[in-house]
Amino acid sequence: MKDCIGVFDSGIGGLTVLKKVREAFPNENYIYLGDTARLPYGSKNPKTIRLYLEQCLNFLSQFKPKAYIVACNSASTQIVEKTWAGQPLFNVIDPVIKEGLKISQNKKIGVLGTRATINSHTFLNRLKKEDPNATVFEQECPLFVPLAEEGWIHDPITNLIVYRYLTSLIQEKVDTAILGCTHYPLLKDSIQKVFGASVNLIEAGPLIVQSLQEAFSSGVITPGYGSDFKFYVTDKSPHLELLAKELLSLAPDFQTEWVHLNQTQEDIK
Amino acid sequence: MKDCIGVFDSGIGGLTVLKKVREAFPNENYIYLGDTARLPYGSKNPKTIRLYLEQCLNFLSQFKPKAYIVACNSASTQIVEKTWAGQPLFNVIDPVIKEGLKISQNKKIGVLGTRATINSHTFLNRLKKEDPNATVFEQECPLFVPLAEEGWIHDPITNLIVYRYLTSLIQEKVDTAILGCTHYPLLKDSIQKVFGASVNLIEAGPLIVQSLQEAFSSGVITPGYGSDFKFYVTDKSPHLELLAKELLSLAPDFQTEWVHLNQTQEDIK
Repeated sequence: MKDCIGVFDSGIGGLTVLKKVREAFPNENYIYLGDTARLPYGSKNPKTIRLYLEQCLNFLSQFKPKAYIVACNSASTQIVEKTWAGQPLFNVIDPVIKEGLKISQNKKIGVLGTRATINSHTFLNRLKKEDPNATVFEQECPLFVPLAEEGWIHDPITNLIVYRYLTSLIQEKVDTAILGCTHYPLLKDSIQKVFGASVNLIEAGPLIVQSLQEAFSSGVITPGYGSDFKFYVTDKSPHLELLAKELLSLAPDFQTEWVHLNQTQEDIK
Repeated sequence: MKDCIGVFDSGIGGLTVLKKVREAFPNENYIYLGDTARLPYGSKNPKTIRLYLEQCLNFLSQFKPKAYIVACNSASTQIVEKTWAGQPLFNVIDPVIKEGLKISQNKKIGVLGTRATINSHTFLNRLKKEDPNATVFEQECPLFVPLAEEGWIHDPITNLIVYRYLTSLIQEKVDTAILGCTHYPLLKDSIQKVFGASVNLIEAGPLIVQSLQEAFSSGVITPGYGSDFKFYVTDKSPHLELLAKELLSLAPDFQTEWVHLNQTQEDIK
């Protein structure tokens, strides 16, 4: 595919980012890679995550995208580069750190993430590095991804679980909470309801849109043409395909394409 | 390790089986392999699962176990063999099928499993093959594994979720329910409470114990000596290690050992 933007996530969480980006820039071609055979990344070792990340970016690079979006928090923790194969590389951590610190009034900031993201203290360390006066409260929410994938989006049980996870952050009076996993925007309504309207929720999608807008404006990348969308996965899953179709309003006959990223998986064929 | 029994699961669910087996046969050495880098198997393609299964059994076979236990339902769906490397191979599906049909009075049998297990209809097909008159009701329960791993074992939220998943089976008046995932025994109290005492819950652990007992009695395998336990994982996870220690009452300083099963993972080192 000529002239495209490449988006990568371990699974389908990154589609929440892609959705915002596609809405903002409909006249672009997109290639999405979900490393579904090896998800979740969250529970994996950092070295393993880095290896998988490189394999996935190298897969995308064969399409020569003009920009790369790593729409996966676990993978973003292992990125220091600002470019890949000579093109801009956007991750989902940098912009939410910046926005969280900008928008918070009382500098009490909550971070919601998977167990691995929270255990890595990536957001905590990055926030404290940028602003040593910020007070950061971390909260792991291991059930959010399965709830989102189960589709229990507007659901009293989900509200109860959200309430349990958020209670301590509410008690600490955070005024801003970072959604530190690209699945979590799917539960945004419930999270906002439990926090109340006064708490700012920071998600990566709209901020990646801003970053792309800046890259277009400054001429770092040039606007595209077309509206093709290719969705590659490393393992086929009818359920994930269905969720993707719903989330992106794709045609009923839309199909993901199965790719094999390493020798072991090629053995399968 | 000389004279051992090898146990394999994609993660830690198989520890519920190992726990029962160790209680019954404390004077045996055990080697457990959790393919934690690639869990969950449940959402993977059958060919992928078979490939991973073979890699894992081949890893265990270097210790020359006198018996193999595949304590993973997803992997068990891809097994036809009764032996591996010349030794008995036990899977967690055969015995629960047999027991479910034996114990059910009204032949209305529920099957609880992960999405992939239920979508494969393995239990349904096997039950109907053994007894065409049985009526089988399948129920996928995607939140059970994350709830068990979160440790919300005796919890009102878990009861609510169990209730939602089981409602249709209760309405259908099943008198027997198969726990079609080795994580589910961790939620057994909640499941039994929601079903009521009259419904029989079938889990693999005690049935594998019976199978081993028969193998010992018939001389197919000989009793062992020692009580060593080695726990290999394909990716280190402090959280899973903690759960394993709790479940098996291991020493606080017990450590899992990290192994690499394929070329890609060896590249990490």
